[in-house]
Amino acid sequence: MPFPETSLATIDTPAVLVDLDIARSNIARFQAYADAHGIAVRPHIKTHKLPAIAEMQLDAGAIGITCQKVSEAEAMIAGSDAIRDVLITYNILGGEKLEHLKALAKKVKLRVVADNRTVVDGLSAAFAGEVAPLSVLVECNTGANRCGVATPEEADALAAVIDAAPGLVFGGLMTYPPAGGEAGVERFMGAAKDLIEARGIAVPMITSGGTPSMMHAAEAPVTTEYRPGTYVYNDRSLVSRGVCGWEDCALTVLATVVSVPAPDRAIIDAGSKTLTSDLLGLSGYGHVLGRDDIAIDQLSEEHGRLVSTGPIGLKVGDKLRIVPNHACVVTNMVDTLKITGAGHDGIETWPVAARGRIV
Amino acid sequence: MPFPETSLATIDTPAVLVDLDIARSNIARFQAYADAHGIAVRPHIKTHKLPAIAEMQLDAGAIGITCQKVSEAEAMIAGSDAIRDVLITYNILGGEKLEHLKALAKKVKLRVVADNRTVVDGLSAAFAGEVAPLSVLVECNTGANRCGVATPEEADALAAVIDAAPGLVFGGLMTYPPAGGEAGVERFMGAAKDLIEARGIAVPMITSGGTPSMMHAAEAPVTTEYRPGTYVYNDRSLVSRGVCGWEDCALTVLATVVSVPAPDRAIIDAGSKTLTSDLLGLSGYGHVLGRDDIAIDQLSEEHGRLVSTGPIGLKVGDKLRIVPNHACVVTNMVDTLKITGAGHDGIETWPVAARGRIV
Repeated sequence: MPFPETSLATIDTPAVLVDLDIARSNIARFQAYADAHGIAVRPHIKTHKLPAIAEMQLDAGAIGITCQKVSEAEAMIAGSDAIRDVLITYNILGGEKLEHLKALAKKVKLRVVADNRTVVDGLSAAFAGEVAPLSVLVECNTGANRCGVATPEEADALAAVIDAAPGLVFGGLMTYPPAGGEAGVERFMGAAKDLIEARGIAVPMITSGGTPSMMHAAEAPVTTEYRPGTYVYNDRSLVSRGVCGWEDCALTVLATVVSVPAPDRAIIDAGSKTLTSDLLGLSGYGHVLGRDDIAIDQLSEEHGRLVSTGPIGLKVGDKLRIVPNHACVVTNMVDTLKITGAGHDGIETWPVAARGRIV
Repeated sequence: MPFPETSLATIDTPAVLVDLDIARSNIARFQAYADAHGIAVRPHIKTHKLPAIAEMQLDAGAIGITCQKVSEAEAMIAGSDAIRDVLITYNILGGEKLEHLKALAKKVKLRVVADNRTVVDGLSAAFAGEVAPLSVLVECNTGANRCGVATPEEADALAAVIDAAPGLVFGGLMTYPPAGGEAGVERFMGAAKDLIEARGIAVPMITSGGTPSMMHAAEAPVTTEYRPGTYVYNDRSLVSRGVCGWEDCALTVLATVVSVPAPDRAIIDAGSKTLTSDLLGLSGYGHVLGRDDIAIDQLSEEHGRLVSTGPIGLKVGDKLRIVPNHACVVTNMVDTLKITGAGHDGIETWPVAARGRIV
């Protein structure tokens, strides 16, 4: 792995490492695919939470960024003048959030989503007195069964409500699809687009996204824009789905063996406060690079338990690098990252600008 | 619940709420049990991470605090002059951590643990030149199969190593027991104590801990000290074990319904970045107070999915209070808490002083 092994001894553990060369390569790979298929790229920053990596994505050709929460968007915009176009893929409710949203809309090209009338009414009330209208997309449920209107007919009806609402302009259609859900996206979004256009309302964009099936985005040609997040770092869940290899994982957790209490068991100083309890359908809590025989079978907050099918072959003080199950949640656990690559001389420490931005 | 419902509308969500009156009652309940049985109380601060709550525990009769990591201890000590006695229940390794440990030892009465020779050697090398020796306890595995020496004989041997090591003094025995493991604690610790005392080495303290079986601590009479953590807030895992009721849960997550996309499904604005993915053997990710029919069956980072056996009966904008599966990990997700009770007039915002302290 490109991360300089000689420097790892100097890093206090546990620590989250990011190799910018791998991240840059991951960014380029999807951008090339999207460019080849005429799809705009709007990366979700939930994975990295770093203005500097958003700038790498924009430099590579991304048209803007995606955030999940208003406070995430604030942190990202505060950290980079290059971020001028932001989509917040969330139903935004409540006076405090709406005030922040109005301030954001004065700074960047801003779009949000809605899947219900209550949210639209709140947005309209907030923006009716503003100079520029807010662009609102309709979130559509194409099979993930999280948020989203249930049918193209409902999407059409809500688009008409947005179009008629003071202070708002209809911005298009958005979905967070299930993996492999391209046919469902095409069917739903195509039907909704036809209905809305038949009213005489334009559908400026249709945005979908999610790393697992990003290399199939073009199989839903109705999609104009794609929003991958995890692709920048990759993780064990994506390796297990065959989306990438271990060598494509830009984010790893550096841990130290603190105890070897049995011949087949070792304990590391990274637990759920670093690796998190996210399983994403997997067994175990991460992959120890170079040790396919080891499973991380149990985490408590500050301990990770490693078991092997044979002798564990580790000693107290050994350092290990672990690819976590889910990269996005790991960057939310730490105040800083250790960064290498991309022309950086040695290892730098970067604060995670948008960590913990949940409102 | 004592949290003032009328004030909840003013809190931006998701938010983590703590009711200090319930916390105080939880603290008093275990302190009374421990006092009645002559057991010293040394609460683990991993649950609250707050100097002010540590002070409540000390005021109630606790003899000191427990931390898991050196940086946690630093944050707690920096936040309260009342914290003068700290046990760090962790194998501490590496030059940077040992330097911090030496600085801490000059400020408070400090104890650490070790379960292997490498850790003891590192501690000895660091403290050999210090004026005062460091107290080191031997961590024993009484069935949790995490860290700890495996047998009383190994505990005895490591105690002798510590006793002979420059800069160190043997401090006693420590275990993190499995729930219901009192008989095992008594057997292991009793045997180890006999062996060590037969060498002419005193065993100043024997410390055990863990909230699930805290009200059975006296069933291992060899124990001189107990280290509960979660008991201060309680959580869904403890309710499910019969340790407490919902009315004893001091920490709740306040969330807003942002979407009701189907008659039996609603989405809240608290996901794994607030509730975490910790299951602790349970099904679902938390308990919605007052709604036994609802399961939180799926989390993504910023969405929680609620499903009901019947009509969900919620509307967009409704606020819900949720008891998380595991309180300790929730306080690590947020920079601030909303505090009420204990004479506080209204709702205060407190920073989580030791959040994210993983090194």
